[in-house]
Amino acid sequence: MSATYVRGGQLVTMDGERRVIRGGLLLEGDRIVKIGGRAPKGARVVDATGCAVIPGLVQGHVHLCQALFRGMADDLPLLAWLKERIWPLEAAHDRRSLRASARLGLAEMIRAGTTCILDMGTVHHQDAVFEAMAESGIRGFSGKAMMDAGAEVPRGLKETTAESLAESHRLRAKWHGAEGGRLGYCYAPRFILSCTEGLWREVGEAAREHGVLVHSHVAEHAEERAAVKELLGRDDVAALASYGVAGDNVVLAHGVQLRKSEMRSMAKAGTRVTHCPSANLKLASGIADVRAMRDAGMVVAIGADGAPCNNLMDPWTELREAALLAKAKQGRADALPAAEVFELATREGARALGLLDQTGSLEEGKKADLAIVDLGGLHQEPGGDVYSRLVYATRPTDVRHVWADGRQLVDEGRVTTLDEAQVRTAARREAKRCAARAGLG
Amino acid sequence: MSATYVRGGQLVTMDGERRVIRGGLLLEGDRIVKIGGRAPKGARVVDATGCAVIPGLVQGHVHLCQALFRGMADDLPLLAWLKERIWPLEAAHDRRSLRASARLGLAEMIRAGTTCILDMGTVHHQDAVFEAMAESGIRGFSGKAMMDAGAEVPRGLKETTAESLAESHRLRAKWHGAEGGRLGYCYAPRFILSCTEGLWREVGEAAREHGVLVHSHVAEHAEERAAVKELLGRDDVAALASYGVAGDNVVLAHGVQLRKSEMRSMAKAGTRVTHCPSANLKLASGIADVRAMRDAGMVVAIGADGAPCNNLMDPWTELREAALLAKAKQGRADALPAAEVFELATREGARALGLLDQTGSLEEGKKADLAIVDLGGLHQEPGGDVYSRLVYATRPTDVRHVWADGRQLVDEGRVTTLDEAQVRTAARREAKRCAARAGLG
Repeated sequence: MSATYVRGGQLVTMDGERRVIRGGLLLEGDRIVKIGGRAPKGARVVDATGCAVIPGLVQGHVHLCQALFRGMADDLPLLAWLKERIWPLEAAHDRRSLRASARLGLAEMIRAGTTCILDMGTVHHQDAVFEAMAESGIRGFSGKAMMDAGAEVPRGLKETTAESLAESHRLRAKWHGAEGGRLGYCYAPRFILSCTEGLWREVGEAAREHGVLVHSHVAEHAEERAAVKELLGRDDVAALASYGVAGDNVVLAHGVQLRKSEMRSMAKAGTRVTHCPSANLKLASGIADVRAMRDAGMVVAIGADGAPCNNLMDPWTELREAALLAKAKQGRADALPAAEVFELATREGARALGLLDQTGSLEEGKKADLAIVDLGGLHQEPGGDVYSRLVYATRPTDVRHVWADGRQLVDEGRVTTLDEAQVRTAARREAKRCAARAGLG
Repeated sequence: MSATYVRGGQLVTMDGERRVIRGGLLLEGDRIVKIGGRAPKGARVVDATGCAVIPGLVQGHVHLCQALFRGMADDLPLLAWLKERIWPLEAAHDRRSLRASARLGLAEMIRAGTTCILDMGTVHHQDAVFEAMAESGIRGFSGKAMMDAGAEVPRGLKETTAESLAESHRLRAKWHGAEGGRLGYCYAPRFILSCTEGLWREVGEAAREHGVLVHSHVAEHAEERAAVKELLGRDDVAALASYGVAGDNVVLAHGVQLRKSEMRSMAKAGTRVTHCPSANLKLASGIADVRAMRDAGMVVAIGADGAPCNNLMDPWTELREAALLAKAKQGRADALPAAEVFELATREGARALGLLDQTGSLEEGKKADLAIVDLGGLHQEPGGDVYSRLVYATRPTDVRHVWADGRQLVDEGRVTTLDEAQVRTAARREAKRCAARAGLG
């Protein structure tokens, strides 16, 4: 079995003791087999002098299906953003455009050091997303979006409850555990306003029965919360819990509008939240109170969300934004120090996705999911500890090498599994076609 | 005279009509001599296909003297940040460390497309900052920080009023108009709590007499505002105006705490403000209301501030942050659209510094201050108009070429005027020495 020895770097292990170690790290097959020690004979040696060696980053909420729509929906609030742009565009996806979209988003994320994602697909053609994930080498989960309610949902996205469940079950059976366990399925009912109570109940049950995640949105925008209250007479957190959608297999994006009491009830149930700071700013949803969530005992991941509400799909931008916004939210400069923020994209992200035994830290026996980050750029010199440099000053272009599941996905700054030129060309072509089909071209 | 013809790009002129033109642009000597037209014989041709050609970016508030302290003062609020770290570190500067700091900051900014700055120096050794600015090729103003008050100001920074004025006048006489007018002096009384009324009055008068800028801070942090109120019985805006420090030669950083009535009075006087969104988040100062400032008629520039309160000195991060934070501040996703945000770093920045007749837009007869920005990165594909790409998705590494005053400062992503390796080595060495002198090593 081929071995790779990474030498000379600063290992930011994110293990239980948060050790930062100067020393080597040995990969063999799909595993980290040794922290410290020397290079064994015959191993390929990769020099990480002047670099941090970090766990591959986990993004706990993305929409690969929207990468194609970057810049096409700027400066709109959540509900208008969905109705006027995102839903019509998603409804216009065919299998080819969806594949181009997924490949674009994956190439961008992998290039930046992301090795694990929780994705929400669109309603149709979901196999294309899984095929792109398989090809790219990334670890993670995706699920087709489920939408069986909502007066304003376009025809191309509206399903019956039975259709939505049947297609989801088919995809779970096909993709959960695929690629040697690297890929998994998640049920992805879109959000409270687009799904019937019956759908939620069936999803909650099926997810528990099959041991898979539920991936949805919660308490994102004040307008949305008002609409939920009017429709259901209560907030989405309470409604979802009463439908059986709560617990440590449930990951909900955003939580911007959560009250303290809701944070406590979600923490108690084990329900996870993914913080998407840029998207929350872009759609004028507000600033989620991550300090309060963590103090309440919640597991919080981080994610870039979709390109039309960000516009980047870059974990570094989100880490920096999370650190800065927590200070504004709390009015305290020490609200969420860099070392704590870095957990969101590593061990806490992995924990949120139920993968902490496999990824999210550099430890012997874990999957070989890691990245080498150059800390010597002018923009990072000369000072600060490693977490300060990583969270406040690192950019995707500082990432030199990336491995996931033991396979090298980025080599000297180039994605190895996807051809960047092809990805770019296909994205341009398919974006035009898709926008034209949506009547937005 | 040597001519350079830039062909094939999308010219984001930022002229009076905000024209975006496909076509060529001709530089000759230190000027833009032609927009459109063909390449003349003998001109060097630079290909900008797939790129935006933009005015060189203006940063209206930076501290080159603090670049060396990046990452050394994370997670502290303004007044503690100053007293515990920044003032002791600045007091420990010698001429050599200040030079290293300025060169580090300049290399980072120029690499990212910044061609014009308004800098605040520290109290001593200011010639070193000007020497570095001269060498780097950047356009702009700097001034030694003036500090003749404040019980907690360390001995190494505290001056008498007479010393502070004498040194400032000496520097103005030496540097204002230097390098063929590329460099200018600004009087830089640090902020209301560090300067006596007498100093402010003298500065206001001298600035008007000699036609130079006053560069200071205003209404940054709530704690600071409370301290001002206790000391003076009124806010800094009112105090400064009564001292004669108001008008279109006065540029004040931040304005986070400004009330609407203060915005109106500053707009009426012509006093300018520089928005520093990242720094305001990092020091937990809050979010400045740029929408309200512009609606009140104020001239607003943008700046990265210093590395210890950012940690980047990158105009792109600030543009994106300004766009996103305005949405949060106003609760409206359309609060400050990308096209409007881009003005802050171009024509509005130039206007704030009194240089709109020279820089801040691509127009025939203006100084050749411009940058070529690649729009073809995966993170910018496939959609969105040029302002969306520039503001929401551009990174410093997308900048390919930069000219200031007709001189090429960045060529294919490399700074030509400063040696990056030397800058890095000197920064590491001098940061250690400086921190040790400050007792923070």
